[in-house]
Amino acid sequence: MDERAIGVFDSGLGGLTAVREIRRILPGETIIYFGDTARVPYGSRSKEMLLKYTRQDMRFLRSFDLKAVLVACGTVSTTALPQVRKEHDIPVLGVVEPACRAAAKSTRNKKVGLIATAASIRSGAYEETLRAIDSDIQVKGKACPLFVPLVENGRVHSGDVVIETVVREYLQELKDWGADTLILGCTHYPLLMEVIGAFMGEGVALINSGAAAAEELKAHLEQADLTVSGRDGDAWFYASDRVQNFEELAELFLAEKLPHGAKKIDIEQY
Amino acid sequence: MDERAIGVFDSGLGGLTAVREIRRILPGETIIYFGDTARVPYGSRSKEMLLKYTRQDMRFLRSFDLKAVLVACGTVSTTALPQVRKEHDIPVLGVVEPACRAAAKSTRNKKVGLIATAASIRSGAYEETLRAIDSDIQVKGKACPLFVPLVENGRVHSGDVVIETVVREYLQELKDWGADTLILGCTHYPLLMEVIGAFMGEGVALINSGAAAAEELKAHLEQADLTVSGRDGDAWFYASDRVQNFEELAELFLAEKLPHGAKKIDIEQY
Repeated sequence: MDERAIGVFDSGLGGLTAVREIRRILPGETIIYFGDTARVPYGSRSKEMLLKYTRQDMRFLRSFDLKAVLVACGTVSTTALPQVRKEHDIPVLGVVEPACRAAAKSTRNKKVGLIATAASIRSGAYEETLRAIDSDIQVKGKACPLFVPLVENGRVHSGDVVIETVVREYLQELKDWGADTLILGCTHYPLLMEVIGAFMGEGVALINSGAAAAEELKAHLEQADLTVSGRDGDAWFYASDRVQNFEELAELFLAEKLPHGAKKIDIEQY
Repeated sequence: MDERAIGVFDSGLGGLTAVREIRRILPGETIIYFGDTARVPYGSRSKEMLLKYTRQDMRFLRSFDLKAVLVACGTVSTTALPQVRKEHDIPVLGVVEPACRAAAKSTRNKKVGLIATAASIRSGAYEETLRAIDSDIQVKGKACPLFVPLVENGRVHSGDVVIETVVREYLQELKDWGADTLILGCTHYPLLMEVIGAFMGEGVALINSGAAAAEELKAHLEQADLTVSGRDGDAWFYASDRVQNFEELAELFLAEKLPHGAKKIDIEQY
């Protein structure tokens, strides 16, 4: 048992869907979350810039006493993560590898669909990781640029013609192709689980990358006997831009109120 | 006659609708455009962050020899502009005052509707400016956060259920209220002119803030005898993120091809 906290960061709010899963399956843990809302989105940054940002995000998180960090940002997971992992003496997990392992385990027909931001699709990181796990797997990726703004505006409910139209337009081709597994390769997308699930049909498994990462984190902590139980875990939230928007939206992603609100920090000082 | 260029900047692509108007009514002028695509959107940033970004955008533009700058960003026009104007020895025009003057001139029933980003609405700047022009004018503002991503994804056409649904949801209350003039307080919105016009009906005047600013810029230059004529003006485009996206979308906003493509610059160095 190790009472130190778990750090989680993302470029913005999306990583809160991973926090939600951690709180569900590791309810005794303390969580420190940082959303780099002043510098979102990371998807378009150069590799050097991403390494700089990631190092700053890690330095801020390490100002707390941590036992592990979950990088809940797909872009960082596929770029700066291997380097930054070497620079820290605690486990640093990403979201891409857990999602790919879960997808490889789930698919029967070896046809895996991938939806993500344009930058993540362009990076080819999911395809590469999936093929390294099982070279027989075929991957078809589809960028879904309207999903993030639609989710952030609460357009997540079945029966909303706006989200249902956009879901159909983006996913029709993956459905026609016959994917039996679909990776939600962006931490915003779990909020669309219901609408996407209804469109794709029951035969298609949806892989929530935040949930897959939370599962691996749990396995990791259990193996090293570092989990905390017998208490209610707490959660503290930080952002680099005004916290009002952050607090308003956080409830949607986290499915609970922020226990202590959110606090703004100046990430450039780290 | 002054052959120096006119600088224009916006957080992204929207300001190109103002460039389109400048090129239409001041065809002899050279234009330098900067779109801060790496840090878009500005609408959700704090005031401090907006001042920092605006100063950097101005420093980049002033690396060219300019006779005037048009800030084609509603958010900056309502936040950082007064401060930054003091820091420069050439005219720096925003989009808010020209739009308000045009709206005050247009309205007969003194009911002016305003649509803009959440930050612009929150700032209260349009209301303040309109009431300073005519204290009898009533203003009703409505934030339309989904318009920018929808426009940037090409959802601008009549008959598209997605944009028509969102337009109806956002504008119904302004229509019911009886606005006879509607300020499009964001440089992306002129692309929705047709859909918005069809919904609001013929009796409602739509004020294109970029066009109103271009008119004032023209008047300003003519008064000081600074306009250039007898030649075809040229236009150079810069962005802070990968220019491929920028070039693809620019044509939609500008209604012409970029004469020299676009060039990427590192705005953090300014």
